Amino acid sequence: MNGLVTIQDIYHASNIIAGKVHRTSMHSCETIGKLYKIDLYFKMELFQKTGSFKPRGVLNKLNALSTEEKNRGVVSLSAGNHAQALSWGASRENIRSTIFMPALSDKSKIKATESYGGRVMLTDGNLLEECLAFAEQENLTVLHPFDDLEVIAGQGTVGLEIVEDLDDFDTVVVSVGGGGLISGVATAIKNLKPNVRIIGVEPLGSNVITRSLEADKPITMDDRNTIADGLNAPFAGVHTLKHIQTYVDEMVNVSEEEIIIAIGLIMERVKVVPEPAASAALAAIQSGRLKTKPGEKVVVVLCGGNISLENLKRFI
Amino acid sequence: MNGLVTIQDIYHASNIIAGKVHRTSMHSCETIGKLYKIDLYFKMELFQKTGSFKPRGVLNKLNALSTEEKNRGVVSLSAGNHAQALSWGASRENIRSTIFMPALSDKSKIKATESYGGRVMLTDGNLLEECLAFAEQENLTVLHPFDDLEVIAGQGTVGLEIVEDLDDFDTVVVSVGGGGLISGVATAIKNLKPNVRIIGVEPLGSNVITRSLEADKPITMDDRNTIADGLNAPFAGVHTLKHIQTYVDEMVNVSEEEIIIAIGLIMERVKVVPEPAASAALAAIQSGRLKTKPGEKVVVVLCGGNISLENLKRFI
Repeated sequence: MNGLVTIQDIYHASNIIAGKVHRTSMHSCETIGKLYKIDLYFKMELFQKTGSFKPRGVLNKLNALSTEEKNRGVVSLSAGNHAQALSWGASRENIRSTIFMPALSDKSKIKATESYGGRVMLTDGNLLEECLAFAEQENLTVLHPFDDLEVIAGQGTVGLEIVEDLDDFDTVVVSVGGGGLISGVATAIKNLKPNVRIIGVEPLGSNVITRSLEADKPITMDDRNTIADGLNAPFAGVHTLKHIQTYVDEMVNVSEEEIIIAIGLIMERVKVVPEPAASAALAAIQSGRLKTKPGEKVVVVLCGGNISLENLKRFI
Repeated sequence: MNGLVTIQDIYHASNIIAGKVHRTSMHSCETIGKLYKIDLYFKMELFQKTGSFKPRGVLNKLNALSTEEKNRGVVSLSAGNHAQALSWGASRENIRSTIFMPALSDKSKIKATESYGGRVMLTDGNLLEECLAFAEQENLTVLHPFDDLEVIAGQGTVGLEIVEDLDDFDTVVVSVGGGGLISGVATAIKNLKPNVRIIGVEPLGSNVITRSLEADKPITMDDRNTIADGLNAPFAGVHTLKHIQTYVDEMVNVSEEEIIIAIGLIMERVKVVPEPAASAALAAIQSGRLKTKPGEKVVVVLCGGNISLENLKRFI
């Protein structure tokens, strides 16, 4: 026991969530691949239930709760994608859910979260502190949005599916917020294909994992600024940092302008709508910040597509 | 021989194009379905090679040409999607292609057509007349963009795939320009599932098929106005009109505003980028112009996703 999720944990998660979430597809994209002389594939996690990869971890975590924990109801915190996934997943499993969201969250995300049946609590204060205080007061089961071994194992099923869909590949590029997705994906892929490079991508304006790696401990970052709300985590996780230190080869930071250019490129060429958090992964390639070799077989995970038309129109 | 494509023709086309084009996926969409109390599916033809369904008909037609016809090179006319598909398909089969396009075509479509290897001829004049004159002068093989039995049979493979992917369904909604796609789809589905309703959708401002059905003969429509360039056909085909008269249950006309609302709905909820021609099919449902029963299982064909970011930004 080294505190890391195992490949067996991820296979187990895959069985738990099978049939409850979408088995998302992989699309090749010759036109963008040609631009950068690579063999490019997109893992279409933006077609996942609730519009992002998050339901995978949520369902695996909910399944691991005791009946008593389930009966008390669950509470968590999120600016958007985890909120929607938890509200949806908890309703699906007949568990009451409460989610603390920033008062300034995208209105469409608040509305979507409520529409799945969960209770939304808006706050201008410290999300984590308020969530924990409320949990104690109401005797609720707290779910961490990313720093949890069952959540990481659930997100790892994205990595399993990539390995199932492609015989061989060189590099996987994953956007990083709190690090739950990349922790799971890297664990799955490094255990099955040790030679594959795993690249994490953060916005320059919100790069708490890059900074935590430099500090060699999870840090908190207060002064953050990015349009990629899905990557705007204020702190690194203890578990996620450990998985990233163990399995991720390189972190790349991209600018806001690069994220916006990648949104347009994906919309015009791939015909899908990525949220900024998703386009950040392609931005690492498009900007040249991630070095690739001619012919390199690269998988970019498009992790979510939750963006309001108004915001999209402002960006493109 | 009644002049109609047969189901055997469509099976044959399916064998011809297999492995050359994408076998596109079907996505269910509960969130939009709930809005209209239907069980809603999208056939994702916007993920097809070159960004629309057109390569299916093109490849089937090119395969049917004699060696002598292939060697002379082919010529056709199109404002966009057929142009790209022919340029791509002809290059793939090592056939020289020339495509007459309106001088005012979307620049990205002209550029894409050239990028696939075909020669583009821009004109302000009558596309068909100039194309035919040039074909005679240069001794080229003329390909009709839609009014051709091999083209119709090729587009019909979309219908075969819908029948393969869904055990049963009630209604299929298809956008209509010159009518090639709906002719093929309706032929496939009515032969395999005679009780399924086939609905065609045209813009109110460019509805040459609706008018030709009323006139009981193919007419030409000069005064057309729609943002759905893919549906802006100036004339109905002899073959397409006959197939539509035989197999299509109802034509619905939608406004430009309804097409635009449907674009936004598809982008926010389905996370894909439809061109206006594709969103028109959903607009028929969203506008209430197409009547549906609660629980009706409806397939909407998203026929293409070729739209520049500038145009998209103007519309949403």
